[in-house]
Amino acid sequence: MKYRDAGVNVKAAQNAVKNIRRLARETFSSSVLTDIGSFGALFELQKKYNEPVLVSSTDGVGTKLEIATMTERFDTTGHDLVNHCVNDILTVGAEPLFFLDYIATPKLKEKMIEEIVRGVSKGCKENNCSLVGGEMAEMPDFYKEKHYDIAGFIVGIVEKKKIPDINKVKPGDILIGLKSNGLHTNGFSLVRKILFKKLKLTVEEYVPEIKNYIGEELLRIHRSYFSLLFPLRESEIIKGYAHITGGGFYDNIQRILPHNCSCVIETSTWEVPPIFDFLRKQGNIQTEEMYRTFNMGIGMVLIIDASNKEEFENYLKEKEEDFYKIGLVVEGERTVEIKF
Amino acid sequence: MKYRDAGVNVKAAQNAVKNIRRLARETFSSSVLTDIGSFGALFELQKKYNEPVLVSSTDGVGTKLEIATMTERFDTTGHDLVNHCVNDILTVGAEPLFFLDYIATPKLKEKMIEEIVRGVSKGCKENNCSLVGGEMAEMPDFYKEKHYDIAGFIVGIVEKKKIPDINKVKPGDILIGLKSNGLHTNGFSLVRKILFKKLKLTVEEYVPEIKNYIGEELLRIHRSYFSLLFPLRESEIIKGYAHITGGGFYDNIQRILPHNCSCVIETSTWEVPPIFDFLRKQGNIQTEEMYRTFNMGIGMVLIIDASNKEEFENYLKEKEEDFYKIGLVVEGERTVEIKF
Repeated sequence: MKYRDAGVNVKAAQNAVKNIRRLARETFSSSVLTDIGSFGALFELQKKYNEPVLVSSTDGVGTKLEIATMTERFDTTGHDLVNHCVNDILTVGAEPLFFLDYIATPKLKEKMIEEIVRGVSKGCKENNCSLVGGEMAEMPDFYKEKHYDIAGFIVGIVEKKKIPDINKVKPGDILIGLKSNGLHTNGFSLVRKILFKKLKLTVEEYVPEIKNYIGEELLRIHRSYFSLLFPLRESEIIKGYAHITGGGFYDNIQRILPHNCSCVIETSTWEVPPIFDFLRKQGNIQTEEMYRTFNMGIGMVLIIDASNKEEFENYLKEKEEDFYKIGLVVEGERTVEIKF
Repeated sequence: MKYRDAGVNVKAAQNAVKNIRRLARETFSSSVLTDIGSFGALFELQKKYNEPVLVSSTDGVGTKLEIATMTERFDTTGHDLVNHCVNDILTVGAEPLFFLDYIATPKLKEKMIEEIVRGVSKGCKENNCSLVGGEMAEMPDFYKEKHYDIAGFIVGIVEKKKIPDINKVKPGDILIGLKSNGLHTNGFSLVRKILFKKLKLTVEEYVPEIKNYIGEELLRIHRSYFSLLFPLRESEIIKGYAHITGGGFYDNIQRILPHNCSCVIETSTWEVPPIFDFLRKQGNIQTEEMYRTFNMGIGMVLIIDASNKEEFENYLKEKEEDFYKIGLVVEGERTVEIKF
């Protein structure tokens, strides 16, 4: 018996690594000292920080992967993964340094792995992040057929003094919402239940209410806010960043409220994209549950001082970025009130 | 419809996070600036390095997880994961800084997650590594029932000048083998095929040839070599470290051979533990394939200069560590020759 008789093909893995190596090299900054395939990836730290703080995060794409499987399009989820991680560390003002991915499949298919990593590589390039390593796990008998899982790990860096201090948040501060690009990567188990189990739709179907094909709409790439917001790091305009992911508005905005503050959000201040209304109606979901699960068209919420409103708005206009003043910080005990 | 109707229970996740937070805090060094549950984990870098190089690695445990599922024992695989990652970055002389885990399950069970993270926490404490974050993904419909997957991500640090330079490896250097603790985390798809599909054994079965129960033997924890070898970092005795993982002796030792060197390994120099012989016989596996797949009782291979042999041996004896002089570096073109 050979190892490949057990469903594991070391040779296929070696071929896949060749493709990955090529895609990863395209992302390397001059700090990367090793090629893909070493035991450990070496990344030399630059000297520009006085008190360097490393910021790390790990994420998956959740069951959005199922849509990739259904559409047999594998080059988007890796991009989602990077952007999700980048946004997470951006919430403390960090710039990305490097990224690693973990890909697990029931059977290693070189082409599919290459597609996945192409997405990761694209995301890394977009965010000035080096893809320094990863792991491919071939796990026969674990995943259901055609299924796979990916996880991403990011490390960024921030000057200690530049980390936003949520204790500076105070009543009267303004909540600014920035547009998401569709569902991003949350709530997909519920989405699948509504669209595929209840409505029996397919990914090829065109839905007039959302003016899009289901597959295309669901695979829209999780947007990164790095290139938009990172240039502001020296200005200290942004007091808090809430990346609207799992747990929706309630859990994520609460994280950036100090003990003596609450916030009130007016949902009438922005237009919720049609996909969310479609899901709410078809799934018969209560509005509050929607805001606990989905981003509702707002992928990042920022808290700024009212005195900086004009400067910040001018900056966003200059960048041709749509934005919404979605609410206010008020006195309270860390509650997120949403007015529908 | 609510999110939990789709098989996702945000509340269960929040409860699990409480347990994780407690276990993670036990591992925190003074460099950790955030608690578990932040968007990004903050780790302040100490100033003791002149030219700091970050070393990162990601790994899974592969289908060793299946054994955890069969025995319903979930507190060992996390420990495996940490030790595997620690050994990977130790190969460039790095000390661990922090660790993140990714856990994906079809249905989130608080107790199981706590057990998994207990193993991770134990491994982190053993290796002076802070468990700073992680992600739990509840992925209904993805994994087969009772299955789950975990991935780990480590970041360590090394002084640039202390990174072993494989170009110093030369003919006449000695290969020292250090004992593994059983199978570690590789070759489990083949192991499962032989023991469970072919021989129809169960994890409860006692096998006289290996003097152990199957479940216990297979779940032995991947050994970390950090506490043994890290004290030698200033001495520069170790010219190269090969962590014997996927790809066995051939692929892993080749990685630390410079272009003008090969090595010859004499398998008669150590006693291969009975589990490997049992697998070879029962699986009718060629000996070469065994050394390409398993660690064969040697979890770490080190290359040292012949002139340092005595000093190194004395150090290992002082630490009560068994070791084997398993081979020699010779002139050649990066081939690993194994004499059976």
